[in-house]
Amino acid sequence: MTAEPGFTREEVRLALRNPGLPLEALRHDVTPIGTHYVLVHFDIPDVGAAGYELAVDGRVRSPLALTLDALRARPAVSLPVMMECAGSGRARLTPRPVSAPWHDEAIGCAEWTGTPLGPILEEAGLLDDAVEVLFTGHDRGIDQGVEQEYQRSLPVAEALNGDVLLAYAMNGAPLPPAHGFPLRLIVPGWYGMASVKWLRSITAVAEPFQGVQQTVLYNYRRSPDDPGTPVTRQRPRAVMAPPGIPEFLSRLRHVRPGPVTVHGRAWSGLGAIERVEFSADGGRTWADARLAPAASEHGWCGWSYRWDAASRGEFELCARATDAAGNTQPLQPDDGWNVGGYAVNAIQRVSVRVD
Amino acid sequence: MTAEPGFTREEVRLALRNPGLPLEALRHDVTPIGTHYVLVHFDIPDVGAAGYELAVDGRVRSPLALTLDALRARPAVSLPVMMECAGSGRARLTPRPVSAPWHDEAIGCAEWTGTPLGPILEEAGLLDDAVEVLFTGHDRGIDQGVEQEYQRSLPVAEALNGDVLLAYAMNGAPLPPAHGFPLRLIVPGWYGMASVKWLRSITAVAEPFQGVQQTVLYNYRRSPDDPGTPVTRQRPRAVMAPPGIPEFLSRLRHVRPGPVTVHGRAWSGLGAIERVEFSADGGRTWADARLAPAASEHGWCGWSYRWDAASRGEFELCARATDAAGNTQPLQPDDGWNVGGYAVNAIQRVSVRVD
Repeated sequence: MTAEPGFTREEVRLALRNPGLPLEALRHDVTPIGTHYVLVHFDIPDVGAAGYELAVDGRVRSPLALTLDALRARPAVSLPVMMECAGSGRARLTPRPVSAPWHDEAIGCAEWTGTPLGPILEEAGLLDDAVEVLFTGHDRGIDQGVEQEYQRSLPVAEALNGDVLLAYAMNGAPLPPAHGFPLRLIVPGWYGMASVKWLRSITAVAEPFQGVQQTVLYNYRRSPDDPGTPVTRQRPRAVMAPPGIPEFLSRLRHVRPGPVTVHGRAWSGLGAIERVEFSADGGRTWADARLAPAASEHGWCGWSYRWDAASRGEFELCARATDAAGNTQPLQPDDGWNVGGYAVNAIQRVSVRVD
Repeated sequence: MTAEPGFTREEVRLALRNPGLPLEALRHDVTPIGTHYVLVHFDIPDVGAAGYELAVDGRVRSPLALTLDALRARPAVSLPVMMECAGSGRARLTPRPVSAPWHDEAIGCAEWTGTPLGPILEEAGLLDDAVEVLFTGHDRGIDQGVEQEYQRSLPVAEALNGDVLLAYAMNGAPLPPAHGFPLRLIVPGWYGMASVKWLRSITAVAEPFQGVQQTVLYNYRRSPDDPGTPVTRQRPRAVMAPPGIPEFLSRLRHVRPGPVTVHGRAWSGLGAIERVEFSADGGRTWADARLAPAASEHGWCGWSYRWDAASRGEFELCARATDAAGNTQPLQPDDGWNVGGYAVNAIQRVSVRVD
């Protein structure tokens, strides 16, 4: 069917371990456990609740060791948070960076419950020379030739942001193993790499963290020797639940002639969603979709468009989001090409046959 | 790295929608929701609990219409059931049938709660000419050029088997959407295609069902015009949790020199597991693993082997199961080659570097 280079077995095995959201699950306001996307860099570590302790240390006046009970005894917040993997859209690039082969499905919007990070850092007392806060997971493996536990840092100001959570529950239940049991970070608005799972320690550091997950990976680089700029917040996207019924293998959609209400979700980490547009001709012409008011600050927005599938034939349905900061989605994936294939937020294209 | 033909985008998209068990999750006796394999043929249908009704009809004396409350009011049984997709191992075949590209991970062992099917069929009263019981799901799509709801049948004797359940809970919670909410069939010992999800109706039929999911798909066929023989029960398999730590992209395992206890699970739908063997040299020499007593009739068995990773270098670890009926696993996937790539139960091979 295509002349494109085939996918490697490594990409397929990553896909089988790291599922996306089946797009029909966009119908749920809160993504059910088991349909939310997952990206596990190494193995899911075997961390029990009994004996679990989170270290808060480094450039602080009073290092802390917090049990799960101690964390649960602190003020609790529940937030719907739109999460997306930074590798979104990578599989559409030419040439294609070889990693998790995401298209549109590296997304999910669950309700996370936990305690805000800021007051814990204040209790520990950040020293004046602390510039970043480093988060270390229990997950261990090798990437870019470096044996490591998964680690990411946040600038101090971001770590103190009131909506950054230490979460112990997802949709009202203890975190599932693949989502960071027993404790994970949630950084609303950022791509998922910031929301470190299976937290082992939180360390205030006096120098910017230089680990590969921060300096080599998760950077926008135009070439391998470009130092790049860090991947941080989510770019705007609108994604539709493909209408009609699918063919098993191709996933081509079949729709009966007549009006079809297409539903979807939209989000941006850079500003509120202000506009979603719909196209039934591959992005040549656009019309405004109906945008529902955002139900929460960090969740996604619902949208819908009543498409009149009047004539038989093949159509390419597209959706495009624009946020309050004026960011909009590009038409072509390669407009956002970068070495790691990060944050490729080109418009979704869904092939439909009206028959 | 490989000269093999690349995987298609269709295979990758099926993998992203249909996750496998991350093999480190073999550590859980009961597979957590969100790590159990999923195979959704079409879309997850939008079936609510309110107003849900299961029809029991066809060649019966008294057709029934059962609400979820009525089903929950009947005698309840909870069973750990080892489930495996019939496409297991397909991605290792040459030539490779193009469908969900499973390796070893199309597995899971959850605890399913529901009410036995047999008494419901007895209550409806199968007529003498009923030869099969047909199960129809709410999921609709196109496969093999045929628009259909997913349908599979069982011979009457299998349908009356006491352990066949109409399940409304998985691991003590209502079924997740991807696993058949609100009601699914569970047929212990059979490959997963028999355990129809999102049940709409149960129909006693006087002729064997001839739908494509029964006569074209899920058959062992040596060539496209071979009528084939039906895929039914699970062939024996042993699968290990790969030891050590992984490299992100290749998933190659790294192990420190010294003794390593390798853990895994084994199962067969054709007889109890009697033996699991382990090999550290790609299947040339074998030693018996320690087999734990089966905790339940339809679950999996634990096994372990203390491997002395004494010398540095590359090793290929393998496991092989044998059941009480004398079935054992072949060494080479192509020994089981068939058009649809079903039930390829060749031994697992895990590449490990001791360094």
